[in-house]
Parts: sequence; C-alpha cells; structure tokens
Amino acid sequence: MPGFIFQHVVQPRYAETDQGGRIHHSAYVPWIEEARIGFLHQQGVAYAQVEAAGYFLIVRHIELRYRRPIQFGSAVSIETRIEKQGHASLTFAYTLSQQDVLCAEAHTELACVDRQGKPTVLPENLKSALAKLS
Amino acid sequence: MPGFIFQHVVQPRYAETDQGGRIHHSAYVPWIEEARIGFLHQQGVAYAQVEAAGYFLIVRHIELRYRRPIQFGSAVSIETRIEKQGHASLTFAYTLSQQDVLCAEAHTELACVDRQGKPTVLPENLKSALAKLS
Amino acid sequence: MPGFIFQHVVQPRYAETDQGGRIHHSAYVPWIEEARIGFLHQQGVAYAQVEAAGYFLIVRHIELRYRRPIQFGSAVSIETRIEKQGHASLTFAYTLSQQDVLCAEAHTELACVDRQGKPTVLPENLKSALAKLS
Amino acid sequence: MPGFIFQHVVQPRYAETDQGGRIHHSAYVPWIEEARIGFLHQQGVAYAQVEAAGYFLIVRHIELRYRRPIQFGSAVSIETRIEKQGHASLTFAYTLSQQDVLCAEAHTELACVDRQGKPTVLPENLKSALAKLS
Repeated sequence: MPGFIFQHVVQPRYAETDQGGRIHHSAYVPWIEEARIGFLHQQGVAYAQVEAAGYFLIVRHIELRYRRPIQFGSAVSIETRIEKQGHASLTFAYTLSQQDVLCAEAHTELACVDRQGKPTVLPENLKSALAKLS
Repeated sequence: MPGFIFQHVVQPRYAETDQGGRIHHSAYVPWIEEARIGFLHQQGVAYAQVEAAGYFLIVRHIELRYRRPIQFGSAVSIETRIEKQGHASLTFAYTLSQQDVLCAEAHTELACVDRQGKPTVLPENLKSALAKLS
Repeated sequence: MPGFIFQHVVQPRYAETDQGGRIHHSAYVPWIEEARIGFLHQQGVAYAQVEAAGYFLIVRHIELRYRRPIQFGSAVSIETRIEKQGHASLTFAYTLSQQDVLCAEAHTELACVDRQGKPTVLPENLKSALAKLS
Repeated sequence: MPGFIFQHVVQPRYAETDQGGRIHHSAYVPWIEEARIGFLHQQGVAYAQVEAAGYFLIVRHIELRYRRPIQFGSAVSIETRIEKQGHASLTFAYTLSQQDVLCAEAHTELACVDRQGKPTVLPENLKSALAKLS
C-alpha cells in the first residue's frame, strides 16, 4: 500500500487566484479532496456510492505546508498516497507540484462516520479495495 | 412590499480577490445569497427552519450586471428587495455599493421545491411574513 | 464562428455540493470561466499571456438559467461558443449537461480593459484567433 | 501579547454547506483569514495598506483540527491570538465555536515577503502595533 501513488492533475482556475498574484492557499483544500476522491475512484470506490450506503469520510485534521507559490496558467500535479489506515480512519498524504517543482505538501486524516455522525468502521468495499493495494 | 429594502453589509474576503486586483465576479453570488437569507431572517423566517420543514428555495435564474470593480479593504453594502412574488416563486433584486458607489446590480428568481425537488407553494410562515411587508 | 463549439468537462467537487443535496448554483460561475479560458486556449490564446500583455477580459454581465439540478458523482459537459464579438467585448454562451440532460444555460459578456481598467480593443492575437473560427 | 484575544463572528453561508449536511471543512480557511485580518485591523493595521506598502503576509503552514461539525443557521465565534512572532513571520492560533461548543482549532504560520516573494522583516507599523499588545 505505501508504494501506490495516484496521479491527479488540476488546472488552477482564475477564480482561485488572489491579488497577491498567486493561487490563494485555500484553493488547495478542494484540490486535495478531488485528488483523494479520484484515488478512491480508481480503486473502484465511488464516493457518491459510499455516501449512498450511509458512510461519510469526514476530515478530522488537515495540514498543509506551502513551499512555493502556485501560479495560474499551468497545471498542478497532485500525488496522493495512503499514509495510514485505521479501523475507522484513513490518512492521506499529498504532494503538489507545478512544472516539476514541489510547491506544497499536505496530509488529511479522515474519520468514517455514519448518518448520525457516529464513528464507524470503514465500509467493506473500501477495505477490500485498499487491501489490494498492499 | 416593493418599498421594503433590507440593508446588508459584507466585508470582502482576501480569498475573494483575484490577480486582476479586484474581487472576483463569482464572489458576489454567495454574497447576495447571504443578503436574501438575512432579508428573510429579519422577517422572522430562518432559512434553516424552512429547509427543516421540507421546503427549499432554489435558484432558477440569476443575473448580475457588473458596473465598477469591488476592491478588497472596504465594506460592501447590499440592498435587497423583493421584486416579484408568485405562488411558488420569489424574485429578489439587489444593488451592491462600495463607498456609496454603485458597483453591481443583481436579480435572482427562486423556486420553492419540496424534498423531491417538485415545485410547491411557498410555506405559510414565509407568505405571511411577506404579506406584512406590503 | 457561430458554428464552433468548445467541449469542456468538469468533475463536480464535493466542496461544491450543498446541504440541499445538489451542486450549489454559485459553483457554475468558476466552471464556465474555466470553460471559456479553455476555449481561448484551444484557439492558441493563453489567458495568462493576455494578462501579461496588459489586457484583462472582465465580466460585465452574467446570466444563468438553472433547469435541472447537477449532482455530485458524474461529469458535467460544458459547450461553449461565442455569441457576439465587439471591438472591445465578447459574449460567450454555454450549455451545461450531465449524463446528456441539459441542466443549465449561461451567457457572459466580457469587456476588454487595460491595466487601469479602461475599455480597450481586443488584443490582435485574440482577434485573429477568433477570425479563424468564422 | 499572549493574553490578547480577538473575537470575530462569522455567519456560515449556505454556499458553504455540503451534502453531508455540515459546513464543508474548506470553508474554515477563508474564515480564519478573515479573523486574522480583523485582528490586525483592530490593532490599526489595515492589510490592504500593508500590501500597498509592498509587504505580503503569505501562509506558509496551516493546520486545522475539526472536533465537531459546524452547522448552517447559527453564528460561529472565532477567537484569534498570536502564538509566536518572529522577525519575518507570525503564527496565529484560532478556536472556532458554535453555540459555545468548541468545533475546531487552527494554526497558521505566515511569512512576510516583498513584491518579489523574498522573505523580509515585518513592516514597522505592524511590529509596533504588536508590541503594544504585550
């Protein structure tokens, strides 16, 4: 599992720039969400169906380190991997690069909860999909 | 009713600026939503409770005319009024000003739908609150 | 020119959903901006370079008609075409569909301005790129 | 300085909800930016003027811990304080509460850079404003 890395590409939106002339730091948060949803999708786990089945992967902790500004006008490559898997939690790590230069690193810890928001073990199809990665 | 105008103030966020040095035009859309929710709230209608009762006021049509740029660093005044009231719809008009200069005008047409998305008449408490304005 | 249509695909982000269970109507605004920037890019006009050359295409008017909700979990196709070309302005029209169902239509009127915000004629490379479409 | 706490109130926007029925975790990032800009403003430092003078406080690191969901429909109180002050950096800490329940904690480390993005010491007016807090 630690070896598997999902590659995702985001084209920064003009709406995501700020008047400092860079992509605003808040824009990275939906980007890495898109990347981890893409990661799961590639493993055969559609997040819309996870929710339809009554499971929600909610963010408990997020950390981003911004190393170099990201500019509008060229693509951003996001590499996503699973850093840690618990019974009811999942930690993803990400690197964000633009033109082969590392711009940011991120980590998100997700908890699996049910419709009432109560922690619950990861759904079976997600567990078996992740098991195939190791 | 046409006479009643709700005053709402928004402080532009840095995250809402763009690299052209202005507030990005997309930011106005959540602002006017905030203004109309404030309008309803002042009439005693909490939108969270409208939804809890099974009604959703969804946007069917939106139009914005941008006259002058809005800058980060000073407040925006939004004046909101009801332009038209139907059995199952409501049209709001807005003006957005910064430092007493008109910057934009907007109109939103909302449809009232139920949980299944089916058009339905406006809830009674909303109708009676609006009746008091006329 | 009226015949040329640019196809763009957007994957709705979870961050763009709302508690009504649909994509929030404000999310469409950055989407159609992304679509028209993609349109221009395909004609050889990179918007980052338009700005670097001192031109800004700013939105003067926007109109969106929402016909059916857009859901998280499947792609949105945006068809973009130029509706009208002026000396210093450009109007784009868009349709947004999900799973071959028309969900929304939009129009944006853009003005070309210089660094001081003064209206100015469209840059030459943009004009000649558009001329090739007709 | 460690004693001074700035109180800021944010009304969650409907646009910031997600289909899980809570405020999306990404929305907190512009909120805490708004809170720290409000903090500085209360000390007599307008961020628009900081930038006009050629200084940019850019986010180098951000961390958020989500403890309880934040709901649409009631205000969020953000308490902001300075955690650490360096020659060219500033760390803020935040707590976010709704109806007197702690919902999240956050930390942001900001670097002061010039127009070219080069690290530079904090501007004099900001340093003297912060000195008054201690």
